[in-house]
Amino acid sequence: MGKFITIGERIHCISPAIRAAMETMDGEPILKRAREQIAAGATYLDVNIGPAEKNGPELMKWAVKLIQESCGNVPLCLDTANTKAIEAGLSVYNAAKGKPIVNSADAGDRISNIDLAAANGAICIALCAKEGVPSDNDERMAYCQQLLEHGMEQGMEAEDIWFDPLFLVIKGMQDKQWQVLEFIRQLRDMGLNSTGGLSNVSNMMPKHIRPIMDSVMLAMAINNGLTSAIVNPCDQRLMETIKSADIIMNNSLYADSYLEI
Amino acid sequence: MGKFITIGERIHCISPAIRAAMETMDGEPILKRAREQIAAGATYLDVNIGPAEKNGPELMKWAVKLIQESCGNVPLCLDTANTKAIEAGLSVYNAAKGKPIVNSADAGDRISNIDLAAANGAICIALCAKEGVPSDNDERMAYCQQLLEHGMEQGMEAEDIWFDPLFLVIKGMQDKQWQVLEFIRQLRDMGLNSTGGLSNVSNMMPKHIRPIMDSVMLAMAINNGLTSAIVNPCDQRLMETIKSADIIMNNSLYADSYLEI
Repeated sequence: MGKFITIGERIHCISPAIRAAMETMDGEPILKRAREQIAAGATYLDVNIGPAEKNGPELMKWAVKLIQESCGNVPLCLDTANTKAIEAGLSVYNAAKGKPIVNSADAGDRISNIDLAAANGAICIALCAKEGVPSDNDERMAYCQQLLEHGMEQGMEAEDIWFDPLFLVIKGMQDKQWQVLEFIRQLRDMGLNSTGGLSNVSNMMPKHIRPIMDSVMLAMAINNGLTSAIVNPCDQRLMETIKSADIIMNNSLYADSYLEI
Repeated sequence: MGKFITIGERIHCISPAIRAAMETMDGEPILKRAREQIAAGATYLDVNIGPAEKNGPELMKWAVKLIQESCGNVPLCLDTANTKAIEAGLSVYNAAKGKPIVNSADAGDRISNIDLAAANGAICIALCAKEGVPSDNDERMAYCQQLLEHGMEQGMEAEDIWFDPLFLVIKGMQDKQWQVLEFIRQLRDMGLNSTGGLSNVSNMMPKHIRPIMDSVMLAMAINNGLTSAIVNPCDQRLMETIKSADIIMNNSLYADSYLEI
């Protein structure tokens, strides 16, 4: 297995500072977070512009060019429910440092985002879900296979579809966590790549607990074969966990300085 | 699965303070570490008197009575290569709060420690090893089955044999870590209990790294079904990891205060 891939989650319109910057097309707050996440070790940066119904294509184009031109063509994950905005972002994307990621397709209305990824040489995050949370792993697997088949029909390589089991919130769905972890293992056994929004796990927990809970969940998930996750790379405990997990899984070679690399 | 069981490792003759206390039969340094570990959340306390060739039986009896009488009959894990000393410790052990643990049998010369445990209603830690480190999981499993059969013949319940896969040092055996983790999963799939000396994993690493590496390894191992471990319960990060893992595995119910409990 290669080293675990982190997709930095901090350029997200849910943050007031980022929302304001996107509304006024003010680049600096966005670039600040881009640089912080790269310095912290993020491989990809997620760019979430929200639904962006008014000016989605224009906004995504601007954001992609802004970040890539200022940050050495850092690879990006284009995140919005607005398909036209993803398409526009892909049209200006520079793949010198890595393919773009389309975030995301699902087994329902958004399955056509796979087509978009296929047509543009992109990776596609594929939620193993249709409407709401799948009731069990059989349902997750049925969606996974549907999405995989669809991608193959569109000419995608299986490795470019990153399956998302949907991390579930512990406060409310504590008894389902093992299912998610077992599903990740099933994906690994099929040789598939996987990802997901990790922080959902600790949603609504006190702030000091979240890095602890997220770290433990991620260690377990990496052991089961998770190949990437959408995370806050500025969470030091989480990044220490990822680096240590890569050592234990033999994805990177141990050195006493491995946490500083 | 029940809550994860911690066996506190800090009463060990390798520590100069404990060695001196054992040599002079000075109770206070030992009781100090006993109380610290209980306060930190240890379920069992390991009592390692070393080979104790001279006065093993006398020393173990003294230590067992000392700790149990002062600490509300805390359950103990009797840890020495001196079988007569274990036997002596068992003869004065008070099982009001839990069976004693014999630490340990193996598939070689020390297999008779299972007999000792069986004859005294004790739990027995069974190293899946004979001489040195097993070369692979087939070898581990062969030893496991040999030990299990031997225990059953002696009238033990399978649940009272805690199989130890032998945690391996990353510095030197990095590429074998996944084997240990997979073996723990095999034990779980057989419905067997498991344990092991976790800190071996981070042996020879810089001090600030050890709690990080141990925590990540333990999260992975608990997800794979490890039911207990011999650990330093005064390692805060490790105990946070154990408590969080118990939440994710649904062994204990989430509350915002779960880290303080």
